[in-house]
Amino acid sequence: MWEKKVAVIMGSDSDWPVVKGAVDTLKSFGIAVEAHVMSAHRTPEEACQFASSARENGFSAIIAAAGKAAHLAGVLAAHTTLPVIGIPIRSSTLDGLDALLATVQMPSGIPVATVAIDGAANAGILAAQMIAISDMEIAGKLQARKKAMREEVLKKDQKLQEQIQG
Amino acid sequence: MWEKKVAVIMGSDSDWPVVKGAVDTLKSFGIAVEAHVMSAHRTPEEACQFASSARENGFSAIIAAAGKAAHLAGVLAAHTTLPVIGIPIRSSTLDGLDALLATVQMPSGIPVATVAIDGAANAGILAAQMIAISDMEIAGKLQARKKAMREEVLKKDQKLQEQIQG
Amino acid sequence: MWEKKVAVIMGSDSDWPVVKGAVDTLKSFGIAVEAHVMSAHRTPEEACQFASSARENGFSAIIAAAGKAAHLAGVLAAHTTLPVIGIPIRSSTLDGLDALLATVQMPSGIPVATVAIDGAANAGILAAQMIAISDMEIAGKLQARKKAMREEVLKKDQKLQEQIQG
Amino acid sequence: MWEKKVAVIMGSDSDWPVVKGAVDTLKSFGIAVEAHVMSAHRTPEEACQFASSARENGFSAIIAAAGKAAHLAGVLAAHTTLPVIGIPIRSSTLDGLDALLATVQMPSGIPVATVAIDGAANAGILAAQMIAISDMEIAGKLQARKKAMREEVLKKDQKLQEQIQG
Amino acid sequence: MWEKKVAVIMGSDSDWPVVKGAVDTLKSFGIAVEAHVMSAHRTPEEACQFASSARENGFSAIIAAAGKAAHLAGVLAAHTTLPVIGIPIRSSTLDGLDALLATVQMPSGIPVATVAIDGAANAGILAAQMIAISDMEIAGKLQARKKAMREEVLKKDQKLQEQIQG
Amino acid sequence: MWEKKVAVIMGSDSDWPVVKGAVDTLKSFGIAVEAHVMSAHRTPEEACQFASSARENGFSAIIAAAGKAAHLAGVLAAHTTLPVIGIPIRSSTLDGLDALLATVQMPSGIPVATVAIDGAANAGILAAQMIAISDMEIAGKLQARKKAMREEVLKKDQKLQEQIQG
Amino acid sequence: MWEKKVAVIMGSDSDWPVVKGAVDTLKSFGIAVEAHVMSAHRTPEEACQFASSARENGFSAIIAAAGKAAHLAGVLAAHTTLPVIGIPIRSSTLDGLDALLATVQMPSGIPVATVAIDGAANAGILAAQMIAISDMEIAGKLQARKKAMREEVLKKDQKLQEQIQG
Amino acid sequence: MWEKKVAVIMGSDSDWPVVKGAVDTLKSFGIAVEAHVMSAHRTPEEACQFASSARENGFSAIIAAAGKAAHLAGVLAAHTTLPVIGIPIRSSTLDGLDALLATVQMPSGIPVATVAIDGAANAGILAAQMIAISDMEIAGKLQARKKAMREEVLKKDQKLQEQIQG
Repeated sequence: MWEKKVAVIMGSDSDWPVVKGAVDTLKSFGIAVEAHVMSAHRTPEEACQFASSARENGFSAIIAAAGKAAHLAGVLAAHTTLPVIGIPIRSSTLDGLDALLATVQMPSGIPVATVAIDGAANAGILAAQMIAISDMEIAGKLQARKKAMREEVLKKDQKLQEQIQG
Repeated sequence: MWEKKVAVIMGSDSDWPVVKGAVDTLKSFGIAVEAHVMSAHRTPEEACQFASSARENGFSAIIAAAGKAAHLAGVLAAHTTLPVIGIPIRSSTLDGLDALLATVQMPSGIPVATVAIDGAANAGILAAQMIAISDMEIAGKLQARKKAMREEVLKKDQKLQEQIQG
Repeated sequence: MWEKKVAVIMGSDSDWPVVKGAVDTLKSFGIAVEAHVMSAHRTPEEACQFASSARENGFSAIIAAAGKAAHLAGVLAAHTTLPVIGIPIRSSTLDGLDALLATVQMPSGIPVATVAIDGAANAGILAAQMIAISDMEIAGKLQARKKAMREEVLKKDQKLQEQIQG
Repeated sequence: MWEKKVAVIMGSDSDWPVVKGAVDTLKSFGIAVEAHVMSAHRTPEEACQFASSARENGFSAIIAAAGKAAHLAGVLAAHTTLPVIGIPIRSSTLDGLDALLATVQMPSGIPVATVAIDGAANAGILAAQMIAISDMEIAGKLQARKKAMREEVLKKDQKLQEQIQG
Repeated sequence: MWEKKVAVIMGSDSDWPVVKGAVDTLKSFGIAVEAHVMSAHRTPEEACQFASSARENGFSAIIAAAGKAAHLAGVLAAHTTLPVIGIPIRSSTLDGLDALLATVQMPSGIPVATVAIDGAANAGILAAQMIAISDMEIAGKLQARKKAMREEVLKKDQKLQEQIQG
Repeated sequence: MWEKKVAVIMGSDSDWPVVKGAVDTLKSFGIAVEAHVMSAHRTPEEACQFASSARENGFSAIIAAAGKAAHLAGVLAAHTTLPVIGIPIRSSTLDGLDALLATVQMPSGIPVATVAIDGAANAGILAAQMIAISDMEIAGKLQARKKAMREEVLKKDQKLQEQIQG
Repeated sequence: MWEKKVAVIMGSDSDWPVVKGAVDTLKSFGIAVEAHVMSAHRTPEEACQFASSARENGFSAIIAAAGKAAHLAGVLAAHTTLPVIGIPIRSSTLDGLDALLATVQMPSGIPVATVAIDGAANAGILAAQMIAISDMEIAGKLQARKKAMREEVLKKDQKLQEQIQG
Repeated sequence: MWEKKVAVIMGSDSDWPVVKGAVDTLKSFGIAVEAHVMSAHRTPEEACQFASSARENGFSAIIAAAGKAAHLAGVLAAHTTLPVIGIPIRSSTLDGLDALLATVQMPSGIPVATVAIDGAANAGILAAQMIAISDMEIAGKLQARKKAMREEVLKKDQKLQEQIQG
C-alpha cells in the first residue's frame, strides 16, 4: 500500500500564517504532512533534492507556496513527476498578481496546479482530491466535507432570514 | 482495479483546436479520454449531471476549458470530489486574463487546479501526474517524457552551437 | 397584477454588509425583497432550483453578489430568463478586478447586468428601473430620487461656497 | 398597453458592425428598435435630449455602446430613469479594458447595466429580459431561445463525438 | 484685458481634501478660483450649463476631478472650447486606474488634459502654465516656483548628507 | 503680439505616422508647428536645450510623443514653464499602458497634460485650446470645429437611418 | 587601482526609508556609498551633471530610486556609460506598477538594470555583483552572503520543525 | 587579466530571433559570447551546473531570456554570484507582463537585473557596461556608441525637417 503523505514547502517562514491553512486541511483528512521552509533561490540544492526524491520518499503530492516572482513551485515541478500544487502568496506590492502569473503561466511540459492567491485551504483539498482518485476513504471524507459546507451555507441563510425578520 | 479515464469538457466547440492538446497528451500516456462540449450556462443540467456521476462512471479527473467569465471548471468542481483541472482559454479581448482570474480565484472549499492560459498540454500532463500517484506505469511514462524533454532541449542547444559556429 | 419582488442572493454571509445596500435601496422603493445566502459552489442545487422557479415564484429580477471567481450571477442566469444583476464584491486580493471580470465577461446568450465593484445601491436602483419599465409608480419614485440626488449635490455645492468664503 | 421599443445608441458609426448584433437580437424577439449614432462628446445636447424624452417616447430601455473613455451610457443614464445597458467597445488600445471600466464603475445613484466587452447580443437579450418582466410573450421567446441554445450545444457535442470517433 | 480665473469642479464633496490642492496652488499664483461640486450624472444640466458659459464668464480653464467611471471632465469638455484639465481621483477600489482610463482615453475631437491620479497640485500648475502662455507675470511666478522646488531638493540633499555623516 | 507656434517633439522617427496627426491638426487651426525628433535618452542635451529656450523662441506649448518608458514629455517639462502635452505612444508590448503611466503619473511640481494613447489629434486640439485662452480667433476656429464634429455625427446618424430602412 | 564606490540617488527624501536598504547593503560589502536626493524633474541639471561625471569621479555604478512616472534612472543612464540600477518605488496609487514600467521599459540603447518594486537591498547586491566581476574580494563576500542566506533558511526550517512537533 | 566573456542563455530555441540581438550587441563590443538553450524546467541540472561554474569558467555576466512564468534568470542567479541580466520574452498571451513580473520581482537576496520586455539589445549593452566598470576599452566603445546614437537621432531630425519642408 502506498503512503498518504503530502509535502508542504514554503519559500519563507513569513508565509507560514497563510500556509498553515493547507497543513490543517490535510490533517483534517488524516493525511500526513511534512512542512518545510525551502527556497528556490536561497536553498536551491535542498529544494531540488527534496523534489527529486519525493516520490521514493512516499509523498503523493507537493504543495509549494511563494510570493513575488514565485519560482518555487515550478522549480520543484522540474525535479519530480508528482503533481505540484502552487499557492501564489500576496506580498507587499501588486496584490499577489506577480506571484499568480509566476506560478500559473508555466511553459509546456511542466504544469503547476495553481490555486487562488493565498488559497492555502484549497491547496490542501486539491491534494486530498488527487489522493482520493484511488483512495475511497479520503473520497468519502471529501464528500462529507462537501456536505458540511452545504449545510453551513444553509445554516447561514437560515440565520440571515432570522436577522432580517428579527 | 480503478479505470484510468479522464474527462475533457470544453465550453464551446470553438475551444477544440486548443483543447485537443490535452486529449492528445492524455492519449500519449495511454489514458482513456472522453471529450465533451458542455456549457456551464447553456447546458448547466448536463454539466452538473456529468460531474455528479463522474467518479462512479470511472473518471479519475476532469479537465475543463472555457474562456471569458470561465465558470465551467468551478461549476463542475461544485458537483464532484474528483480533482478538476481548469484551462483558461484566451478569447477576443483581454488576452485570457478574464478566463484566468475566473478559473483560478475559486473561493475556499472548491479548488480548481489551474494551468496556464491555453495550457492544454499541461492540463493533460497534470491529469496524468494525478493518476500516477498510485499508478507506477503512468509514473514511468511521465519520467520518460521528462527525460525526452531534457534530451530535446540538449539537442536544440547542440543545434544552436552548430548554427552559431557554422 | 404581477408582484414587485426582487431576490438578492449573496455567495457568502460575509458579503452582507455590502449587499445590505441593495436591500435597503429596494425597500426604499417599496419593492419586496427576499435575501438569501446561496453559493454557486457550495449549494449549487439550491441556487439552480431558486433561479429556475424564480419567475413563477413572482420575482421580477435577481441580484447576485459574489467575490473572487464570482460565478454566482452567471450560474443563476443560466437557470432563468429573468434579468440577473451582478455585484462584483471586492475581496482580500486584486481589489475586485477578479470578481468584475468573472461577472461581466459572460459568453453570448447569458447576460449578467453588471454594476460597479461593491455597487450594491446601484444594483437596487437598476432592479427598480427594470420594474419601472411597466410600473409608473416606481418610475415616479425613481424620478423623485433623481431629483433628490440633484438637490443634495446643489446643497453640497452651496455648503462648499460657504466653507470657502467663511 | 405600453410599447415594446428599445433604443440602441452608439458613439460612433464605426461601432455599427459590433452593435448590429444587439439590433438583430432585439428584432429576433419582435422588439422594435431605434438605432442612432449619438456622441456624449460631439452631440451631447442630442444625446441628453434623447435620453430625457425616451420614456415618454415609448422606449423601455436604452442600449449604449462606446469605446475608450466610454461616457455615453453614463451620460444617457443621467437623463432618464429607464434602465441603460452599456456595451464597452474594444478599440485600438488596451483591449477594451478602458471602455469596460468607464462603463461599469458608475458612481452610486446612476447605474449602467454593463455587459461584456463587445457583448452586443447579450445587451439585446438583457433588454428583452427586462421587458419580459411583465411581458409573457417575450418571456416565452426567451425560454425558447434558451432551449435552442441548449440544443445547439448538445448537437455540437454530438458532432464532436462523431469527429473524435470518425 | 481678459480675466485670470479658473474653475475647479469636483464630482463629489468627498473629493475636496484632494481637490483643495489645486485651489491652493492656483491661489498661490494669484489666480482667482471658483470651486464647485457638480456631477456629470446627478446635476448634468448644471454641469453642462457651467461649461457652456465658462468662457464668456471669464474663465481661462476648467479643472475637473472625479473618481471611478470619471465622466465629469469629458462631459465638461464636450460643452466648451476652453482647455479642461482632468484629475482622476482614487476611490475605494482599483486604486484610481478606472478614473485614470475614464479621464484620459478621450475619443478624437474632445481632449482632456489629464494629470496623475490625485494630482491636484499639478492640475493647478498646469492651469497656471496655460494662462502663462500670454501672461508674463504668471510665467515669472512659475519660473520662481521652479527655482524654489530646485532649492528645496538641494536643501533636502544637504540635510541627507548631514544625516548620513552625523 | 506673441507668436502662435507649437513644438511637436517625438522620441523616435518611427512615431511620425501617429504624431503627424498633431501637426496636421495644429496647421488646420493656422498655428505654426516646428516638429523634431529628439530623445530624452539619446539626445538629452538637445532636448533640454530646446525646452529651456522654447518660451523665448516664441513657442506657446510643447507636444511630446514617446513610447515604452516614455520620459520625453517629463524631461522637457522639467526645463520649461510652458505647458507640455504628452502623447503616450503604443509600442510592441503592453498596448501603450507603459507609455501612459510613464507620461501621466508625474510627481508633484512638474505636470504633463496627458492625452489618450496615440491621441495625436487631441494633443493638437488641446494646444489650440491653450492658445485660445487669449486668442479669440483660434477660439472661434475651435468652436467651428466643434460644430463641424456635431454635424458630422448628425450626418452619420442620418446615413445609419437610411441604411437600416433601406 | 579603480575605486569601489557606488552612487545612490533618490528622487525624493521620502524614498529614504526604502533606499537606506541599498546603502546598508553596499556598506556591508565594504563598498563606499555616496547618497543624494536629486530629481530628474526638479534638479535636472544637477542630476545630469552628476551622471556625466560619475565615472571620472570614481563611481562604479549608480543606483536610482524613484516612484510614479519614475524617470530618474533613465535620465541618469542617458548621461553615463556606467551601469544604472533602477529601484521602482511604490507610492500612494497603483502599487508601484507605474514606477516599474517607467523604469524597466527603456528604449533600445539606454538600459536600466531594474530590480523589484522597493527592492533596495537587491539593488545593493546587484551593484556589488557588478563590481565583483573584477574584484575577487567582493566576490568572496557575495559568496559568503549566499552561504549565510542558505544557512538562515535551513535554520528557519529547523525552527519550523520544532514548532510543528513541539 | 580576466576574460571578457558573457553567457547568453535562452529558455527555448524559439526565443533566438529576439535573443540574437543581445549576442550581436555583445559581439559589436568585442565581447566573447557563449549562447545556449537551457531550461529552468526541462534541463535544470545543466542550467544550475552552468551557473555554478560560470565564474570559474571565465564569464563576467549571464544574460537569461525566458517567457511566460520566466524562472530561468532567477534560477541561474540562485547558483552564481555573477550579475544575471533577465530579458522577459513576450509570448502568445498577456503581452509579456507575466514574464516581466516573473523576472523582476525577485525576493531579497537574489537580484535579477531586468531589462524591457524583448529588450535583448539593452541586455547586451548592460553586460558591456558591467564589464566596462573596470575595462576602459569597453567603456570607450560604449561612449562611442552613445555618440553614434546621438548622431543618428540628429540625422533623423534633419531628415524630418527636409521631409516636412520638401
